[in-house]
Amino acid sequence: MPVDIVVMKAVSEENERHAAAVRAQLDAHGVLAINMMSSPGSGKTALLEAAIGALRGELRIAVVEGDVFTALDAERIQRLGVPVVQLNTEGSCHLTAHMIEAVLPRLDLESVDLLAIENIGNLICPAAYVLGEHCRVGCLSVAEGSDKADKYPRLFSLSHLNVITKVDLVPHVDFDVKAVEEKLRQLNPEVPVLVTSVRTGEGIDAWCDWLRSQVASLRSA
Amino acid sequence: MPVDIVVMKAVSEENERHAAAVRAQLDAHGVLAINMMSSPGSGKTALLEAAIGALRGELRIAVVEGDVFTALDAERIQRLGVPVVQLNTEGSCHLTAHMIEAVLPRLDLESVDLLAIENIGNLICPAAYVLGEHCRVGCLSVAEGSDKADKYPRLFSLSHLNVITKVDLVPHVDFDVKAVEEKLRQLNPEVPVLVTSVRTGEGIDAWCDWLRSQVASLRSA
Repeated sequence: MPVDIVVMKAVSEENERHAAAVRAQLDAHGVLAINMMSSPGSGKTALLEAAIGALRGELRIAVVEGDVFTALDAERIQRLGVPVVQLNTEGSCHLTAHMIEAVLPRLDLESVDLLAIENIGNLICPAAYVLGEHCRVGCLSVAEGSDKADKYPRLFSLSHLNVITKVDLVPHVDFDVKAVEEKLRQLNPEVPVLVTSVRTGEGIDAWCDWLRSQVASLRSA
Repeated sequence: MPVDIVVMKAVSEENERHAAAVRAQLDAHGVLAINMMSSPGSGKTALLEAAIGALRGELRIAVVEGDVFTALDAERIQRLGVPVVQLNTEGSCHLTAHMIEAVLPRLDLESVDLLAIENIGNLICPAAYVLGEHCRVGCLSVAEGSDKADKYPRLFSLSHLNVITKVDLVPHVDFDVKAVEEKLRQLNPEVPVLVTSVRTGEGIDAWCDWLRSQVASLRSA
């Protein structure tokens, strides 16, 4: 399918230009941006809700919610009283840097320390489009099975943090936490793997510590 | 993004031609084909394993396993002794009819009653590409949350059957079975919704009955 390949290259070059423009704006305002990626329903929004609660008064968080349709996730975030923009792609299976560039003016970046961008629920294409973010976060729920890091290696190998979610479900599903942790470390030896549950609170302190450390390292850069 | 739209149309027209060619081959051999679509880890392979076990000696099943990488799912199916082809897209987030046309010669269609095609784990793009199948099956695990039919309506509204999977996990997750069943029926009033668990066996008889009825209706057509 040579046509597909040509198109992807053209889109990618254009995407890189928009990503650089997004990064320049973020850096001008000292905003650290993370790009959260996973399957649908892996718990990205729940991780964000947990961080917003735990870091209130310490880090000023804003959120861009990416979804094909609906504003359900933005409504969840808005209830927590933080600035949020819902970005609907109405068909596209991933965010692009151009989309982020288009919504940044809706946020007061001078009043933001951490911008969390929740990508479309998809383990494939989001990994091919940088958004201007400083860090990528790959998430994987234990309900999805132990084989997902093998089957979708690109997303997890390009991340700056990988998070195993919903670990409270382990007694009820077939999931080998140790084996998946090891696989994620093989794919991406430089980055930490967190094992979390927003239901029990397991790993949420570590998740917040990682966010704090990324904001601090941007400030000291 | 007008460029994207133009490309999608061109691909779609080409896809329709290949889908017609696939369908002609299937019909010439009296093979019923289903296209199974869901998020990664929703349990499509497990549903197939359950059907292969239950329908052994009654329906001759063959499988095409679509994955970006790995042959893990084909290995699971092969252990059950049925013909299987692993189709790796190495990047693409959905199968196309052209891919199916390319692998059909690897199967002895004269010895097949039901061809199950497991699409790439993705709730978005697979719904935009028919493969020549007779029926589309949308799956959704209770671990993914109650909002997925709202957030990814196209896939479920284009299906001929929607299946809620892993219902044994309901006591441990936030999922409203009745509300999701109702939403799926709103999106797609003509088609049944099955509530299933391969762990407890719930709904597996109904899943097999649906497969039987589709094969029977092709034969009587």
